[in-house]
Formats: sequence, C-alpha cells, structure tokens
Amino acid sequence: MNVNNTHYRTVWMEGQAVKLIDQPSLPHRFQLVTMETHKDTAKAISTMIVRGAGAIGATGAFGMAQAALEAPDNTFQSYIASAAQTLSNTRPTAQNLFYGIQRVREAISSAGQDISLARTAAVDAANAVADEDVASCQAIGRYGAEIIKPGMRISTHCNAGWLAFVDWGSALSPIYTAHRTGKEVFVYVDETRPRGQGARLTAWELAGEGVPHAVIADNATGYYLSRGEIDMVIVGADRVAMNGDVANKIGTYTSALAAHAAGIPFYVAAPSATIDPNCPSGKAIPIEERSADEVRYTWGWSDSGEFIRVRTVPIQSEARNPAFDVTPAELITGIITEKGIIPPSQVASVAPVLSA
Amino acid sequence: MNVNNTHYRTVWMEGQAVKLIDQPSLPHRFQLVTMETHKDTAKAISTMIVRGAGAIGATGAFGMAQAALEAPDNTFQSYIASAAQTLSNTRPTAQNLFYGIQRVREAISSAGQDISLARTAAVDAANAVADEDVASCQAIGRYGAEIIKPGMRISTHCNAGWLAFVDWGSALSPIYTAHRTGKEVFVYVDETRPRGQGARLTAWELAGEGVPHAVIADNATGYYLSRGEIDMVIVGADRVAMNGDVANKIGTYTSALAAHAAGIPFYVAAPSATIDPNCPSGKAIPIEERSADEVRYTWGWSDSGEFIRVRTVPIQSEARNPAFDVTPAELITGIITEKGIIPPSQVASVAPVLSA
Repeated sequence: MNVNNTHYRTVWMEGQAVKLIDQPSLPHRFQLVTMETHKDTAKAISTMIVRGAGAIGATGAFGMAQAALEAPDNTFQSYIASAAQTLSNTRPTAQNLFYGIQRVREAISSAGQDISLARTAAVDAANAVADEDVASCQAIGRYGAEIIKPGMRISTHCNAGWLAFVDWGSALSPIYTAHRTGKEVFVYVDETRPRGQGARLTAWELAGEGVPHAVIADNATGYYLSRGEIDMVIVGADRVAMNGDVANKIGTYTSALAAHAAGIPFYVAAPSATIDPNCPSGKAIPIEERSADEVRYTWGWSDSGEFIRVRTVPIQSEARNPAFDVTPAELITGIITEKGIIPPSQVASVAPVLSA
Repeated sequence: MNVNNTHYRTVWMEGQAVKLIDQPSLPHRFQLVTMETHKDTAKAISTMIVRGAGAIGATGAFGMAQAALEAPDNTFQSYIASAAQTLSNTRPTAQNLFYGIQRVREAISSAGQDISLARTAAVDAANAVADEDVASCQAIGRYGAEIIKPGMRISTHCNAGWLAFVDWGSALSPIYTAHRTGKEVFVYVDETRPRGQGARLTAWELAGEGVPHAVIADNATGYYLSRGEIDMVIVGADRVAMNGDVANKIGTYTSALAAHAAGIPFYVAAPSATIDPNCPSGKAIPIEERSADEVRYTWGWSDSGEFIRVRTVPIQSEARNPAFDVTPAELITGIITEKGIIPPSQVASVAPVLSA
C-alpha cells in the first residue's frame, strides 16, 4: 500500500535479491532491506524483520526461488532440499511458510532434470504465491467494503493490515477498499498491549493511506461501543476453528463481548487458509504464553529519538502474558474471506481440504 | 499499610507540618515529603503528589489545620477564609476535598472567639477526618473479606488501594483484610492503560503487603475470566449513581462484561460518600477526556534508572483518551460499603442525605 505516496509490497524479488520492508523499525523509520541469499532471507524470517502469515509465506517462497538461482548445477537437488530445511526451521508453526516453500519445491520438481527451466519455474512459483496472497486480500477487501457504509466508524485490534501480508491485509483491506472508493470512514485503533502492534503498525499503515483514525487504549473500545460511537468491528484471525470460534490477539474477546452487548456487528477478516480443518473448536487451540517482560516493559521512542524500553511494573512484581484469546462463534457476525462473507457456523464450507 | 515492614498512612500531621508519601515517585522510589505551610500542602494536592478521593479529603483538612496554626491572632478569621479558598481551588471537582475543608472550618467556628481553642479544634477535626476515612476503609475490608474464600484469585483494575485513601483503600481493603487473617489469595492486577496505575501503584502496594499477584495487560482480563482462572472481580468507584450504575477508570466496563459472561461475581468497593444523591443514573455522569499524550506516551524507568517517557504512537496519528466508563448496575453483584454489601439497586438506602 501507500508509503509517502509510493506503492509498496512487504516483500518482492529483484534479480537474485529479496527486498523486504524492515518492520521492526516502523513507524519510526521506513527502510527497505536487501537479502542477497536464501540464508539471509531465512534469517529475516527468524528475526521477525518480516512477520504475519501471508508475508512470511511469500518470503519463504522467494527464499526458495533464491536458492534455485544460487544452487550449483552439480548439486542442484541437494542444495534445494537443504534450503527448504533452512527456511522451514525459521518459524516452526507458521502454516503459510510451509505452503510457500512447498509450492516452489513442487514447481522445481515439475521441471525435471532441466535446471534452467527449474530456476525459471521457481521464480514464477514464488511470484505466484505472492500474487495469490495479494489477490486473496483484495477479494477480502471487496467483500468487506460492501458492508461498510459511508461515515462508518470502525474499530480494529492488533495489526491485520498489509504489513502482515504481501499487500492490502485482511481486517484493513475492506477499510482501504472503502476509503479508495470514496467512502468516508474513521478507524479506532486499539493500541494492543502488550506489544503495541495497533499503535505502532496499524496506525502507521492508516496514516500512509490517508485514512482518518485515532489510537485508543484497549480499555476504551468498550466505552466507545457502549456509546454508539463505533459502528462496526473488524479484526483478523490467527486461527479459525471448524465451529467458527476464532483465536486472535489477546483482547479480541472483550472487544467482541462489548460489540455484542451494544448490538454492533463484529466481523473477522481472514483468508480461508486460516481455517484449520484439524481444529474442531476454540477449546482445542493452545494459547501461547509469551515472555512476562513484554508486560513489564514498553518499547518506544525517547524524546531524543532512540528506540528504547521503559519498565512500568515494580521490580518485585510478577507478570503474565497470554498472547491470544478465543472469541466464540456466537459473538461473531461473519467471517470475511476471499470466497465471500461466511456465517461462523458455516466456515467448514470454505475450509482447506485435508489431504488424506 | 506496610512499606518495607513499616506501617504508613498516605498523609498525617507532625507538629505544624503535613507529611505525605510522594506518590509520583512510586514504585521507583519511596520517599516522604514535608509540607511546612498550608500553601505547600495546597500545591501538593494540585500537583498530584497526593491523589485519590479519601487521601485528598484528609490532606485538605490537614491543610486547614496548618492554616489555623499559622494564622496571626489579629487576622485569624480572614486568614482561615483565604486558606479555605486556596485549598479548595486545587482540584475543583473533588467532593471529599470540600468536605475535609468544611469539617475543619466548622470546628474553628464552633470555638467562637477563643483562638487557642480554635487551633486545637482544627487539628482535632483534621485528625478525625483522616481517622474516619481509615475506619470507613477498614469496615469495607471487613465486609469484603467475608465473601473472599481461601485460594481465591481476584482481579482488580486501576488503583483503589490505600494510596488513594488515608489507609487500607476500598477495592484492596478486603484483599488486605483476607490476607492478614491468613486466607491465601492471588491478585491479577490490570496494568490500567493509559496511565498504568495498576502496574505502578496497585502492584507496589500488594508487594509491600506481601500479597501474591501478577500484572497483566488489560486485554488479558477477559481471557482469564473466560477460562475460570479468576474467581472474583473487585474494583473501586469514582462515582455511584442512585440507580447503582458505577463510573470508574476506563476499562472497568469490559471487565464487568467479561465477568458477567463467565458467571463470576463483580464487586465495586466504595465508601457510601461515593454515592451521588444528585445523580439518577450513569447516563448523567460526564466523562472526562484527558490529554491524548497519555495514550501517545508511556512513562517508566529506563534501563539506566531514569523515569522517562517513550512515544508509542506514530507522530502523524491522532489519539483519544476517555478517562472513565460507566458499568451498568445489572453487571454488578454488589457494592461493598462501610455500611455493608448493598445490591446496586438499593444504593439509595445508604446514600449521603442531600442538604436542603
């Protein structure tokens, strides 16, 4: 999307190099970084220079394409196998990563013994992974924009924007689409403690696209919902269970409760690949507990412009930090996918098919 | 309550001086400050060295007692009138402040022309205001502790502890009472963005009293409630309406919603003086919108030990900052007052009587 009036994706390939937006530097500094080899690209994934399911999937695919371009002719197949291993080991639980790597490996296999053809096929497949992610997010944007009326005030939580995908994003794609087609919208951005992805990334994205918005403490979302000052909530999803329960960033659940109490529609926007055919309900989703230091410390920019952390919790106090919560299907109005807006009770109809 | 194994109140008088805990320095540094004159004491209120309804009321009363001790014999009455004005102008909306000042003025008036008697009466009245605040909080603690069972995990929001009163506090008093009588309790402390009174003050108070606790992001309260890992919620109140609606720190409402959804009891602890006989319902309570910079910046301690702020929101983004929300009576299990635990529908029975 737009950054200083220029259109960017989060990841793309130039010759043999993979170009990435350096996400940890945002919103303080917008800079691109260049990964010259697939090993550099693997490191960019593991160190979270790039994050978000869709963006990681495409980056993994581009890393494989790099490997195909780097691989010596005489050890081509073993080099590819080793690169796939290296790239897979960066973020062991990211489904999209394995998918992106696998798509490129299959393209290479299909080329048979013709190494030159295999290299072209690898680059084409990686570009296809990225383009399909974009197309999927654009479709989510089109479906979602249909239900956004001019003048709506929309709440979102965490960052399910273009920085988490290759472009457009999931929860923010309907907002971008509505805004670009001339509908006035206003976005209430939850700061999303403890890591602040809303304050940091979503606010920065919206500013780049010129979408009017305000950052609020997560505590204030229920207040604005109860007063009728928010007309719709759209959030992303980390995983959607087959009964329509949704795991997403901690705090999503209370936002859904407050929307329900106020009679305000609550939508989840996610590519259908986020639906897990192996997961019957939210109860089956394990919740990661992350480092307590994420609660004890807050990162930001000092008045002298340094990116530093400050401790907000007394040294003798414990802290706990569950990273996700589960919003039950009955609090969700609809799930906006690239295949249409699906009632949560019917997500199984668009879920990925389990291979036997 | 206990600080490094010594018992303190938030405010008291020594000779002609008013002693205060320097609250903005907490939890980094515990230090006492001495206000030599009523004008110093007034400044301590306006600069929020002391905050919280009960603590401010007693500080205002002690400031008036100081004025009585300072006042020259020949201009005694006009000096008292002027001091009352100075102290009243520090925090124009704090009901307890006016009450504390008025109590001391009435004691002075009752002494008639005997200035020596008036001075003694002023000091006695100020001490009575402080002692009555303590007694009221202790009664809240006794009533509240009766409903706390051993092993309970209790959630609280913001700081309604002894630092907001002269001693004991409102929401934390039942917890301290239960803990001191040998009941094991564990407290989940909401950090309470944007100002972080939970992370900063409540956590520090609990550590001083040795009550096991963990600070969590406000976003995590609903999660723990939904999983049955919290057994009870107790919060304070800024104002209680005659229909039982409660205004309290922003984020209280979503905590109440999540407790209700999980079938967990949600209590408000507040002296009966917090009930406003002029306020028919929560709709009549104006909500203060504070500076957006409280959302844009977070204050804390740098790794080198300085108390500084960091900016967490992009420079081009707006922010909004409502300070309170309203929890409707139907989400409240009971209101713990010094007169007993009252169903929210019956708060009028213990409300202060309106003077004609």
